[in-house]
Amino acid sequence: MMRIIGIDPGSSFTGWGIIEDRSGVLSLIDCGVIRPKSKGKENFAVRISFIYKALLEIIDYYKPEEAAIEQVFTAKNALTALKLGQARGVAVAACANFDIPIFDYVPTSVKKALVGVGRADKEQVAFMIGKILNVNVKRFRLDTTDALGVAVCHSSMRRFYSLTSK
Amino acid sequence: MMRIIGIDPGSSFTGWGIIEDRSGVLSLIDCGVIRPKSKGKENFAVRISFIYKALLEIIDYYKPEEAAIEQVFTAKNALTALKLGQARGVAVAACANFDIPIFDYVPTSVKKALVGVGRADKEQVAFMIGKILNVNVKRFRLDTTDALGVAVCHSSMRRFYSLTSK
Repeated sequence: MMRIIGIDPGSSFTGWGIIEDRSGVLSLIDCGVIRPKSKGKENFAVRISFIYKALLEIIDYYKPEEAAIEQVFTAKNALTALKLGQARGVAVAACANFDIPIFDYVPTSVKKALVGVGRADKEQVAFMIGKILNVNVKRFRLDTTDALGVAVCHSSMRRFYSLTSK
Repeated sequence: MMRIIGIDPGSSFTGWGIIEDRSGVLSLIDCGVIRPKSKGKENFAVRISFIYKALLEIIDYYKPEEAAIEQVFTAKNALTALKLGQARGVAVAACANFDIPIFDYVPTSVKKALVGVGRADKEQVAFMIGKILNVNVKRFRLDTTDALGVAVCHSSMRRFYSLTSK
């Protein structure tokens, strides 16, 4: 049995999802979105501190053993990238705080693992998450299903690596 | 008396400095550079986790009451910005972990406060740091003097605000 947290970092919405892998059978434990209240440049440290503290609480409560965090290499512009980077930084810090191994996945890897093609859209990822975890994803935000996507991707990757390393 | 930590985040070198403000007389407590060993994309989470944990230790040891972190809004490209953002994110997380108030300063504010002009270079900042803190900065990296610069900038800003709010 392995409990995995998937995180899709963002300064406005950070999606998170906890799944459990029992010999390849995946189930959803809990998921949601962290949405800092304050807006504006002057409060940016406060905003990402909020994400950090929320993730600390989630990890402390669900005690995942491994973390999968979405990694991007492109952004609209430098300012967006700096904001996104900081959201990702606090996510890494929250996991590091509990000494959980962190695994990075680019969106195309997640999409390939779930849908079969790297250019699938978020709705297709959400649809597959619903099928794989056997849950109704209609009420979930796409940030949440993206986070669950990273977690599911990691569960299949680790199974693949543990099989091939034998 | 007020103890301030200044941080100049970077994924390769994160400068830090602890200063003490006794009624406007500033003194250096300690300073240095955090330099993660591992390089390469695949270990990026490990690299910034290292920065996070080093900052936790520094803050836990010196117990600063306020934090000043350098904030940038521009970067060469999105990838650089994402890396820099993550380094900044873990710095914010480390301070938030101890509930230290965080203050953001852009490099031009730091340079204006120290040198008098917003377009001063790092060497001029280092020179002024040496004068203000009465230390020999020749053995310091520019990341360290930049971090001390943010801390000194914050000490003068907070003095200014406490004077003007009376």
